[in-house]
Amino acid sequence: MSRDSRFDILFEPVKIGPVTARNRFYQVPHCSGMGYRYPNAEAHLRGMKAEGGWAVVSTQEAEIHPTSDLTPANEARLWDDGDLPALSAVTERVHAHGSLAAIQLVHNGLHVANRFSRMIPLAPSHAVSDSLDPVQARAMDKADITDMRRWYRNAALRAKKAGFDIVYLYAGHDMSVLQHFLSRRHNDRSDEYGGSFENRLRLFREILDDVREAIGDTCALAVRLAVDELMGPSGITCEGEGKDIISALGELPDLWDVNLSDWSNDSQTARFSEEGYQEPYIRFVKSVTTKPVVGVGRYTSPDSMVRVVKQGILDFIGAARPSIADPFLPKKIEEGRIDDIRECIGCNICTSGDNTNVPMRCTQNPTVGEEWRKGWHPETIARSEAPEPALIIGGGPAGLEAARALAQRGVDVMLAEGGGEWGGRVARECRLPGLATWGRVRDWRIGQLSTRVNAELYLHSPLSAADILQYGIPHVAIATGASWRTDGVGRTHRMALDFLSEGILVSPDAILSEGAEAVPSDGPVVVFDDDCFYMGSVLAELLARRGRTVTFVTPESQVSPWSRNTLEQARIQKRLIGLGVEIVTAMALAGRTKDQLELSCVYSGRSRPVDCATLVPVTARLPDETLWLELKAREAEWADAGIKTITRLGDCLAPGLIAAAVYSGHQYARTYQEQVDKDRVPFMREDIARLYGLRSG
Amino acid sequence: MSRDSRFDILFEPVKIGPVTARNRFYQVPHCSGMGYRYPNAEAHLRGMKAEGGWAVVSTQEAEIHPTSDLTPANEARLWDDGDLPALSAVTERVHAHGSLAAIQLVHNGLHVANRFSRMIPLAPSHAVSDSLDPVQARAMDKADITDMRRWYRNAALRAKKAGFDIVYLYAGHDMSVLQHFLSRRHNDRSDEYGGSFENRLRLFREILDDVREAIGDTCALAVRLAVDELMGPSGITCEGEGKDIISALGELPDLWDVNLSDWSNDSQTARFSEEGYQEPYIRFVKSVTTKPVVGVGRYTSPDSMVRVVKQGILDFIGAARPSIADPFLPKKIEEGRIDDIRECIGCNICTSGDNTNVPMRCTQNPTVGEEWRKGWHPETIARSEAPEPALIIGGGPAGLEAARALAQRGVDVMLAEGGGEWGGRVARECRLPGLATWGRVRDWRIGQLSTRVNAELYLHSPLSAADILQYGIPHVAIATGASWRTDGVGRTHRMALDFLSEGILVSPDAILSEGAEAVPSDGPVVVFDDDCFYMGSVLAELLARRGRTVTFVTPESQVSPWSRNTLEQARIQKRLIGLGVEIVTAMALAGRTKDQLELSCVYSGRSRPVDCATLVPVTARLPDETLWLELKAREAEWADAGIKTITRLGDCLAPGLIAAAVYSGHQYARTYQEQVDKDRVPFMREDIARLYGLRSG
Repeated sequence: MSRDSRFDILFEPVKIGPVTARNRFYQVPHCSGMGYRYPNAEAHLRGMKAEGGWAVVSTQEAEIHPTSDLTPANEARLWDDGDLPALSAVTERVHAHGSLAAIQLVHNGLHVANRFSRMIPLAPSHAVSDSLDPVQARAMDKADITDMRRWYRNAALRAKKAGFDIVYLYAGHDMSVLQHFLSRRHNDRSDEYGGSFENRLRLFREILDDVREAIGDTCALAVRLAVDELMGPSGITCEGEGKDIISALGELPDLWDVNLSDWSNDSQTARFSEEGYQEPYIRFVKSVTTKPVVGVGRYTSPDSMVRVVKQGILDFIGAARPSIADPFLPKKIEEGRIDDIRECIGCNICTSGDNTNVPMRCTQNPTVGEEWRKGWHPETIARSEAPEPALIIGGGPAGLEAARALAQRGVDVMLAEGGGEWGGRVARECRLPGLATWGRVRDWRIGQLSTRVNAELYLHSPLSAADILQYGIPHVAIATGASWRTDGVGRTHRMALDFLSEGILVSPDAILSEGAEAVPSDGPVVVFDDDCFYMGSVLAELLARRGRTVTFVTPESQVSPWSRNTLEQARIQKRLIGLGVEIVTAMALAGRTKDQLELSCVYSGRSRPVDCATLVPVTARLPDETLWLELKAREAEWADAGIKTITRLGDCLAPGLIAAAVYSGHQYARTYQEQVDKDRVPFMREDIARLYGLRSG
Repeated sequence: MSRDSRFDILFEPVKIGPVTARNRFYQVPHCSGMGYRYPNAEAHLRGMKAEGGWAVVSTQEAEIHPTSDLTPANEARLWDDGDLPALSAVTERVHAHGSLAAIQLVHNGLHVANRFSRMIPLAPSHAVSDSLDPVQARAMDKADITDMRRWYRNAALRAKKAGFDIVYLYAGHDMSVLQHFLSRRHNDRSDEYGGSFENRLRLFREILDDVREAIGDTCALAVRLAVDELMGPSGITCEGEGKDIISALGELPDLWDVNLSDWSNDSQTARFSEEGYQEPYIRFVKSVTTKPVVGVGRYTSPDSMVRVVKQGILDFIGAARPSIADPFLPKKIEEGRIDDIRECIGCNICTSGDNTNVPMRCTQNPTVGEEWRKGWHPETIARSEAPEPALIIGGGPAGLEAARALAQRGVDVMLAEGGGEWGGRVARECRLPGLATWGRVRDWRIGQLSTRVNAELYLHSPLSAADILQYGIPHVAIATGASWRTDGVGRTHRMALDFLSEGILVSPDAILSEGAEAVPSDGPVVVFDDDCFYMGSVLAELLARRGRTVTFVTPESQVSPWSRNTLEQARIQKRLIGLGVEIVTAMALAGRTKDQLELSCVYSGRSRPVDCATLVPVTARLPDETLWLELKAREAEWADAGIKTITRLGDCLAPGLIAAAVYSGHQYARTYQEQVDKDRVPFMREDIARLYGLRSG
């Protein structure tokens, strides 16, 4: 196939100062949870984007000095020349595919606690670190400013030495000393670096000059700026100082990369925003600078991309998450394979990696983080040399991905779903408020499978153990999913609660299948959330929107505390409050009377009642493993039936994230004929590899 | 000096199966935040304990398989032979000083989320991971049990290969699959590994046998068991199954290491317990086994140690925290230098290192974590070759440590304190409820200084800039501390709140100086805590105990959220509830009327009033830097006055932990005559060093 001419504009080369990007696809700096700690993983992740057609591929933020120490986060690091090999590995892999490599230099100012270096953080004014750490940053004096300028310069020189084509100054996400100096709320200096707008801009100007001088005329200089902090007059706004900054510095950098601050505003999930959500804030930028502009907005539609370029909003289509979900997005557009694009679902499982200090993963792209250590490529899998047929039971995320990837390997695969629709939990969950895009997990896989002649798909096809033994297909995967428990067992209650009874219970699964109608409309509803991620809150949201009186009870101190890692927690709690949901925190279940639940304070044990006609317990799930157990009980018959392996996948093996289910299906397809040595670490170990020098795989 | 004969019993050798400990001092397994990630730091930390006289030195928990993956925590790791160099480095350094090296093997069962390995956690029954991660462990089948046994065996073989003398099986802290199988609340199996007590004990027995067989007869086998979980009948109790387990397995291991579970019960802070707090739970153990027993209880008093041995409670004095605060505790008792013991204050800053995934530090011992990367020894500092006199201004933790360590280096040092007592903030804070032991930070340093002829100490000696210039002492350190802000500025409010006024404000400093009397006894008191560690809660506790009606308001979701890292959060919140303090979370300050504060929900912005006659804002501090600024303004006069350097230390440089102040003073004493290159990373970098192989420098 070849490119649709209406997308030609996306493939125009664009000059960025002294360098030229081969097209308009631009992977903006984003965290990966890999960084200096996992340099091979990092290099292969970034290289994959270049291979997939992104004309510019950026690192994550690179700490320039040990007074900017985000340990235990796995960012890029440029403290001294010892960091060069890890970063050179990135530029080599990016250059190998003809792309430009960009590095985002940062001194994190008051955003760090310097837990590892134990040095004092630096800020425009005395200020508490913006983590919870019992650490304060000190106000920089003139000597500190001189040091800071030199550290940026040193880092820029090192960046050039590592082979980067574009060097970024970062003033975004409230995470950078440059933004802190700009900010009225962080800068109360009375010298020439504080007070007036020009004074607060002074350090930025000076460092721009310093870095320009350091990198010379073969390397481009970019600025990443938060043009709005979504906090009204107490922050930068796109009509106020956001605009003023770009107007003032307009022609100094070679490129403007503009976004929202803080990170939770920049990387909003699909639950809270649509594709292109940053346009209202960034559309002014091209009116005040002639330099090329890149921005983001979770763009996955080539038509939207063309529109923003044609409308003069952006010169480059910036992407973090869409480039993670599909590193080959540009190439697929170029080759006219639009239907092959694996669209980001906007779930922010990726950000949870960085936020929990481990290499990120992706719901849509199970190969993320495995490029080096398992040698997984997002687009190719070695064809099986002697493919034996496989039967996959269950058409949820694990089953679909297993079938898709097996079919890609040339395996004859039969996928049998007992129910009447594809997608399993994904089909049910994507009908919940805000989660519609999650259906892309199903849609992309069904789309890919529909092009394969070696894949047969059957709905309404429940299979029994006897059926399976009778078919005698050599490899069987069971991906029958999981069901929500209704016995109260979860994190807080480890044993079943005997006072729960059918009378008041409605399982989350009932709501997932039947919608809000599963819950009686008279009487108060209690959602008891001990799951701590999205499900409790989204069910509460659904029920409140459908007129139920909802009390949200949790043993935790916040609604959906794990969603801090997907940058959603504050938005979720705000939304529930707005919908009139009563929120009761730090309470476990202790008993019940006819119309009330008895709650017990997790700290003091003191009890309080809550009115409850219907209880929806969101605590944990159990695998739907009946079929597996039946087959396991008949293991002696497998060989005679012609069955070599039967394997559980996804939630049926262990309930978890949709990302984990997809990963499980993918892993199966990669290895279904292999004998696994369970004593061996099933991937290359970066920490160990590094003992013997950096492998470049 | 020589040993007091009443301590002789502590220096008796004790046999542990085939090996013999040279005395009764036993460093039990404890986390360090170093582990496999920082192997040189780890090896030097452990080696220092051996040098200081601990007869047995243990690692932290060592993950035996990638299905037991605590990433990003920095534990020990024994996934494959690639891990041996890091662990051999530990045993070499421990053996070099004549001690025994012990390793604590663990499979963490449902306690892990396997964020890095992405493998499914394993547990007796289907169960949610006990982190907040959206991960479930799966119930192990028989094949899994076979695997688990083999993994323990493999790990034991590797441990022996790495040179360990004692191999531990770990069933404590609710963190180990062995404890999970034992536990009724985690094990609902119906096969021979669940149900009856003997069934739940089966896997433990089997693995004991397997490991014994693997390590042979030159290596000892130890068990670390939680004998009580402090949760009554839903957990293990020392009168119930805790006792039953030891009775059943009594003679199988060579040593019993017994403690409380979970970790927050085992490592209680001085705010919540006294030395020896575990005795009521563990005193039964020696009555049911003939094997040697080790236990802990934050023992720092040699007399207490003698007592517990003589009373037949313990054979070994186990220690984690006291061995961190003073690695040379045994040697000091042995050499009759009791007054030199640097006693643990029980603050748990050490545990916060592991809990925040960075190398731990210690309030009392600033050299912890610096043994390798900065070459710091806790007991010795190179004498200055050409010592120039130093003047230290301020007798708080930074000033005291600077003076002490300088005096140790042979420097003539003058320490001038403006007030009438030593200790600065430590003197004030140790009068708060539960913090009396913190006074040890002052007491040890004053004790050490009192033995130095080259140290002169002056109370009631406020010095002006003019005084200092007139004295002309070549090196001046300013350690004048910090004061709490009363303008509301902290994490949440980054700009001063203009509605706060003197009328209702009482500064934390006023309470620290004058006690509860600083707060009017009529009318409700609001403690607004945006500091998030201990101070807000301890002031609320003091005021409530002294009869004030206290409302605790915080923008966070918990009381003292950072104290999760010191394992105190739940105890603190429980205590405030018990004292009748009203707790209002997720609220910022929005305004005030005559008798009320207006609060604003951090999520929704919705406001609510709270009655308030007195507001105590615990938000952030400002350095007391007047003297520094005056001197800085007269920098041109320094040289003529004979002054070479003037340096700020501790809170006067940047308000922080007491640990950071002590560290700052120590750092100064080590380097006061050096010219510092501020562009250089001021320590050896482990991550970089490892690129070129493990240094054992």
